[in-house]
Amino acid sequence: MITPEIQAELTAIVGEERFRTDPESRISHSYDATPMFQSLPDGVIYPASTGEVQKILRIASNYSIPVVGRGSGSNLSADTVPSKGGLVMVMTRMNRILELDRNNHTLTVQPGVYTQTIHDTVEKEGLFYPPDPSSMAISTIGGNIAECSGGLRGLKYGTTKDYVLGLEAVLANGEVIRTGGKLYKDVAGYDLTKLLVGSEGTLAIITEATLKLIPLPESRRAMVAHYTDLDAAARTVSRILSEGIIPCTLEFMDQKTIQVVEEYANIGLPKEMAAILLIEQDGPPAVVENDIHQIRKICQETGATHMEMAQTEAEGTRVLAARRNALAALARLRPTLILEDTTVPRSEIAPMVREINRIADKYQLNICTFGHAGDGNLHPTLLTDARDPEEIERAELAFSDIFAAAIRLGGTVTGEHGVGLAKAPYLEWKTGRIAIEVMKGIKKAFDPQGILNPGKIFADTLRTERVGD
Amino acid sequence: MITPEIQAELTAIVGEERFRTDPESRISHSYDATPMFQSLPDGVIYPASTGEVQKILRIASNYSIPVVGRGSGSNLSADTVPSKGGLVMVMTRMNRILELDRNNHTLTVQPGVYTQTIHDTVEKEGLFYPPDPSSMAISTIGGNIAECSGGLRGLKYGTTKDYVLGLEAVLANGEVIRTGGKLYKDVAGYDLTKLLVGSEGTLAIITEATLKLIPLPESRRAMVAHYTDLDAAARTVSRILSEGIIPCTLEFMDQKTIQVVEEYANIGLPKEMAAILLIEQDGPPAVVENDIHQIRKICQETGATHMEMAQTEAEGTRVLAARRNALAALARLRPTLILEDTTVPRSEIAPMVREINRIADKYQLNICTFGHAGDGNLHPTLLTDARDPEEIERAELAFSDIFAAAIRLGGTVTGEHGVGLAKAPYLEWKTGRIAIEVMKGIKKAFDPQGILNPGKIFADTLRTERVGD
Repeated sequence: MITPEIQAELTAIVGEERFRTDPESRISHSYDATPMFQSLPDGVIYPASTGEVQKILRIASNYSIPVVGRGSGSNLSADTVPSKGGLVMVMTRMNRILELDRNNHTLTVQPGVYTQTIHDTVEKEGLFYPPDPSSMAISTIGGNIAECSGGLRGLKYGTTKDYVLGLEAVLANGEVIRTGGKLYKDVAGYDLTKLLVGSEGTLAIITEATLKLIPLPESRRAMVAHYTDLDAAARTVSRILSEGIIPCTLEFMDQKTIQVVEEYANIGLPKEMAAILLIEQDGPPAVVENDIHQIRKICQETGATHMEMAQTEAEGTRVLAARRNALAALARLRPTLILEDTTVPRSEIAPMVREINRIADKYQLNICTFGHAGDGNLHPTLLTDARDPEEIERAELAFSDIFAAAIRLGGTVTGEHGVGLAKAPYLEWKTGRIAIEVMKGIKKAFDPQGILNPGKIFADTLRTERVGD
Repeated sequence: MITPEIQAELTAIVGEERFRTDPESRISHSYDATPMFQSLPDGVIYPASTGEVQKILRIASNYSIPVVGRGSGSNLSADTVPSKGGLVMVMTRMNRILELDRNNHTLTVQPGVYTQTIHDTVEKEGLFYPPDPSSMAISTIGGNIAECSGGLRGLKYGTTKDYVLGLEAVLANGEVIRTGGKLYKDVAGYDLTKLLVGSEGTLAIITEATLKLIPLPESRRAMVAHYTDLDAAARTVSRILSEGIIPCTLEFMDQKTIQVVEEYANIGLPKEMAAILLIEQDGPPAVVENDIHQIRKICQETGATHMEMAQTEAEGTRVLAARRNALAALARLRPTLILEDTTVPRSEIAPMVREINRIADKYQLNICTFGHAGDGNLHPTLLTDARDPEEIERAELAFSDIFAAAIRLGGTVTGEHGVGLAKAPYLEWKTGRIAIEVMKGIKKAFDPQGILNPGKIFADTLRTERVGD
């Protein structure tokens, strides 16, 4: 509850325009990109500096008000839904690029900078920030750090975690910490930098980040391989990697996804195929040529029925856009799209896809599967309608079965989308109870009152793992 | 204090031969590779399984006995010196390689496996585990994980942290947690894996690790460049990296180090030079040839007075051995060698080396500096005599000045050796007081009684940073 007294204190920090309690502001910050989760905040506040964030958090601490940090809200785990009310703190005014350090290959930014802006800024200088979540055109780097965003290039280049060298962050009590620095090696105490990355706004509010950049690859080349048989596609993935080639992109689409994307984008995808692989390599031209040549040979030998080689980088970009557009394509078909994020060891991709298909049939659901074959990160995606409670109930049972199958195959309940509200009931399936107790202790070390993004990661109620299915 | 009752309980777990309280066992586990730190444990115990580790820790918890996990004790931060007595738990019996998974490019090992054994095992299969701490012939992987060991290849390939995908670890109360897995993406809760890496045995005892492997580079080529001018060497480093080349090794040695290593190894190093750079590149032969050619050109243009190109891989290995042997060479000269580990942004290497030399002159000390130029990780190394209290006092003042200089230049007090006992008084200079409070809270979440490696990371007494120097 925001009393008039608290309202006055908050307004004194940011001004009337930047602290909103009107219904429009509250409603538009009651949800994020995750379907079926919504909860009204008591107010929405827009700090412009670390100092303002500190002051806001001191007030929130004083009055025990929940605070949900948020950028564009493009996450897919309901991580920025203010499920316990309180304040949504929108970080988009802190959107300055503070320094591009060419000598040390670092970029220092405020949290509200768009991921795409980072790409554009550094690539002009011949540098590269690899993480490329599908939402990168609209996502903020603060959100990417909070979620440890992945993307298509994760296999070769890693995820957001691998590119955060240092952070400035404000604790729940308003104190500021600075971790890491322009340092490629730093073992001074526990690694708070890596702990904050992926902590989903539950430990601190990130107010500045120093990112690691690498040299921009000189060239890139893409290709597509078609399969009438799922296992043949899995064999290709396995062979490519076992021959020592790590492509920068190695994406998988199943038949249902191919059909939907082709209907949407009309780019010549073969709708009768069981699977396609979208493969891209980057690096020095000679290496790229050689790798793509070898990959082509491997595709042939492992049972691809057809291959298309992009002749130019632009053509390659167009081909990969098909994968990037998969979500938009799927979203057109039915009112609600639930995008899941199970990850398995990459040797288990074919068994996992078969499990997903079996479970979809069992519950009579329409699930399309695509994802990052090289790192085992699959996105089984349900096309449904949130207004149909009976179908949604079946969907919950199906996803519960899918998570259990991923765990059985040595996988995890979320590879890159985060736990948030959506996965919290299932977290224990992956980590066990003891690890969750430890994590709660860590949360307490940062935020003893529990005001930062409460209700996320740690579930109020757990799902019981059903056995024998 | 280990009473006869506790002794009986511990002996019941591991047998009489594996729990030792004799003076020889206690003395030989009272120190590690760090000079000037020694403290007797009450006993030394050798578990053979996770189950035994659990039982030992339950007893230690019951009786509040400190437990210091240890491999070979090759760390340089006094991290395995049992400064509060108690048990040294030696993990070397748990030394099995559990699985090499060729499909998923992972290796699962027990903590007592030697780092070198890991290299040999996976390289035979065309795979690569890059971290290469100087102690790798004798260090154990458990120790490497506890310390987040670096090495010569850190710039291009990262450190131990970047290669640990999953852990099994026993908490102080004897409970087991399993983190991560054969997963390249996993955001299920806080990243306990990365938090445990580099936690110096203060959070849990690691009993199993799943390591990430990458394809073994096809070829490698080394060269040496000589400089009469420190800044010219720094310019070379900067130019190489700014042209988009990331060598796998980019090592720096100052004049004093060159002189000592040459006297020891007699490999033709130029004793009159101000600095040399040892440079190695690996990868596909065409890339390596091209990079080395470009690097050679850059060295010339930035002021190297002489260059030597290794004609074969074997010759390159011999050249790099000079750097690997630096420590042994230095150790011959005087009874005590104190190897420091300050790290600065790589743009600050030349200023940092100049600071080190100024400080050495000021305190009339013999400090040789070598290290990893590409990642700014320098090892200023003092040749001294622990039996000379007056010189040791000057040394402490000098190192205190060196750490302060590193912090001023945006650096850290330890890049790869860890905090342990040796750096604990200085940790706050890097992290600030608030972050240390948070770290203590994290420690409490794992080990509420504080029995795991007590006295490490968090200092009993702090150093006051002296200003105006």
